[in-house]
Amino acid sequence: VPSPTRPHPVITLTTDFGLTDHYAGVMKGVILGICPQAHIVDITHECRAFDISEAAFTVAQAWRHFPSRTVHVVVVDPGVGTLRRPILVEAAGQFFVGPDNGVFAFVLSEGKHKVRAVSNAKYFLTAVSQTFHGRDVFAPVAAHLANGISPARMGKPIENYLRPHSLKPERTARRGWTGTVLKVDRFGNLITNFLASEFPRVLEGPFEMTVGLRTVNRLAANYQQFGPSELFAIVGSSGYLEVSAGQAPAAKILGVAAGAPIELTIF
Amino acid sequence: VPSPTRPHPVITLTTDFGLTDHYAGVMKGVILGICPQAHIVDITHECRAFDISEAAFTVAQAWRHFPSRTVHVVVVDPGVGTLRRPILVEAAGQFFVGPDNGVFAFVLSEGKHKVRAVSNAKYFLTAVSQTFHGRDVFAPVAAHLANGISPARMGKPIENYLRPHSLKPERTARRGWTGTVLKVDRFGNLITNFLASEFPRVLEGPFEMTVGLRTVNRLAANYQQFGPSELFAIVGSSGYLEVSAGQAPAAKILGVAAGAPIELTIF
Amino acid sequence: VPSPTRPHPVITLTTDFGLTDHYAGVMKGVILGICPQAHIVDITHECRAFDISEAAFTVAQAWRHFPSRTVHVVVVDPGVGTLRRPILVEAAGQFFVGPDNGVFAFVLSEGKHKVRAVSNAKYFLTAVSQTFHGRDVFAPVAAHLANGISPARMGKPIENYLRPHSLKPERTARRGWTGTVLKVDRFGNLITNFLASEFPRVLEGPFEMTVGLRTVNRLAANYQQFGPSELFAIVGSSGYLEVSAGQAPAAKILGVAAGAPIELTIF
Repeated sequence: VPSPTRPHPVITLTTDFGLTDHYAGVMKGVILGICPQAHIVDITHECRAFDISEAAFTVAQAWRHFPSRTVHVVVVDPGVGTLRRPILVEAAGQFFVGPDNGVFAFVLSEGKHKVRAVSNAKYFLTAVSQTFHGRDVFAPVAAHLANGISPARMGKPIENYLRPHSLKPERTARRGWTGTVLKVDRFGNLITNFLASEFPRVLEGPFEMTVGLRTVNRLAANYQQFGPSELFAIVGSSGYLEVSAGQAPAAKILGVAAGAPIELTIF
Repeated sequence: VPSPTRPHPVITLTTDFGLTDHYAGVMKGVILGICPQAHIVDITHECRAFDISEAAFTVAQAWRHFPSRTVHVVVVDPGVGTLRRPILVEAAGQFFVGPDNGVFAFVLSEGKHKVRAVSNAKYFLTAVSQTFHGRDVFAPVAAHLANGISPARMGKPIENYLRPHSLKPERTARRGWTGTVLKVDRFGNLITNFLASEFPRVLEGPFEMTVGLRTVNRLAANYQQFGPSELFAIVGSSGYLEVSAGQAPAAKILGVAAGAPIELTIF
Repeated sequence: VPSPTRPHPVITLTTDFGLTDHYAGVMKGVILGICPQAHIVDITHECRAFDISEAAFTVAQAWRHFPSRTVHVVVVDPGVGTLRRPILVEAAGQFFVGPDNGVFAFVLSEGKHKVRAVSNAKYFLTAVSQTFHGRDVFAPVAAHLANGISPARMGKPIENYLRPHSLKPERTARRGWTGTVLKVDRFGNLITNFLASEFPRVLEGPFEMTVGLRTVNRLAANYQQFGPSELFAIVGSSGYLEVSAGQAPAAKILGVAAGAPIELTIF
């Protein structure tokens, strides 16, 4: 008899369902019907509709701060009802459940992992719709995992899952790299794909980051070091370099959004 | 001595309080003070202010996915402090607590149910305000129900509660029906009041649904079957026919909102 | 060995992190890693970015409805990474954790309390960033408090914390006071800093409240007493006088926002 993974199993949800409709609540009802002791944590339901990249980034920033054996469910799933497969990823002692469409790109691009095609309908709701696998497949599978059902029961390991493109900056000159804005956060900070630990010379300066029509060459130790609306780089809470502005949204000042290119030059 | 309905009782909240103010949080504090082991699930706090129909639809879509003995609290309550009564509905092994103003229209229009006027102030907060019965009446009553207090303790059965209008399409011709848009969801899908199970001939075609200035005559098996912005009908996750568009919000393309009429003709 | 403060310890969160990013979810992951049985309640994550006053008001309205020994975490923290201290306030049998920047102004302006500078890094995450103390300091400290760790372990009592300005109306004439709008809520109600219990003569009338370009001189018993868009005063659910309008947002009708002055004259 399986027993729960933990006395208080944790299941997180990352979706583009928004907070106005019943969809996220329905997933929670399904989960609590199967695993009544689950603690359900919303990472966000406000991913842009169909924006797989944003979902991938968001769960990547969140998962490592959760206890071992947490089950992370990601449902940004424009292909629901087509042949795209549901997958279960085991990585770093945690579980990831969602469609095989790129939502786990970050998880799959680092460290060891095992990917399974979720196919055992015994762990789905009885009637699976063509439009809401969050309710019919992903929520019940996550709840059964939290109940201690072995991942091996969910489906066979696969190798032909969607492989992520490189998420790292490209070297474009002897002292130059081209990266990208992974996300604009609520405060208008541009989170780039330059990991401070991989570009330690930025911390020692001098450097230049060009984004939009502006060039940033100062590194701040905190958000209040420079004056209102002054642009600076800063090591963000996830270890990525961010471009920020004093008490103002850098994204608005620069007129850029997620996906924008960033040029880094280190002198 | 009553004991909780379940080791982990579930209480859901559906309100128009929004997520910026303290109101929803306060209801949760009251609930956890009375029933510390409750799992509280937000269905939504983003019903349009005073929009009873939207609340009624939302809780109707959610409740059947929750475990038995779940307590559903709905607070869209423009008449708070007037003579409108708090009611408790028992239906399908679950509980529904809220004002007698139509928020339970769907629950009351199907299946067996018992309705009570909630009147036993022993289960209210000590001082009941004229402006926030969510905190003073509905939250504590829900928490006491979750604690195992019998519904009969809350108040007497009544028959003169607000009876819902028919929520079904009307037949307007030998092969024609007039229905309505129950809800526009986050993705711009128009959820109609045509239940696919009651209009099986739509699934076999041919048919025409007229909404706004356009006519839809194709049924999709999934959201990606037709091209970008192409309109189609689809059986939604709640069993209602929906009008959707490929990777685009149908509501915007059609310029319609909840309440809009829909004509269905089956050939 | 400390034991949890309650079988189901409660931790509330009030932040300006919004609901789109991973920040609030990350705090919850950290909390559940330390105190797995915690019930985490979102008061709001939608405080305006950097708006310390709004956060202070919101937690002030919420905390007294929570069970004893609840831990309230407030993270509106533009000075994160600077010398502003993390503090722990003990008041009325509850705990308050956040930056020493005014977010606890209401809590500190009433009743007895003890304030500590949170300095014991043993209860922080191992590496404390310069940009996200919600994750690295406030969440783990709150979780350890919920686990029963004594406040005294967190740091020494201090007296030189930020003292709040008076939050009460000022007397400006024999029968006149000048107050302010503390908050505009979701419904457009103006919540003023006039406590009905301190201005009982408003309840007996006659009185005049001037706000924006309009004067209000009627007190309603409930929100439906007056006609659509008619302005009135009403005793709000927190005991403050509010200026409201029938089924319409008073703030829009009046063109005012939080911080606007209000003149009260009692005849």
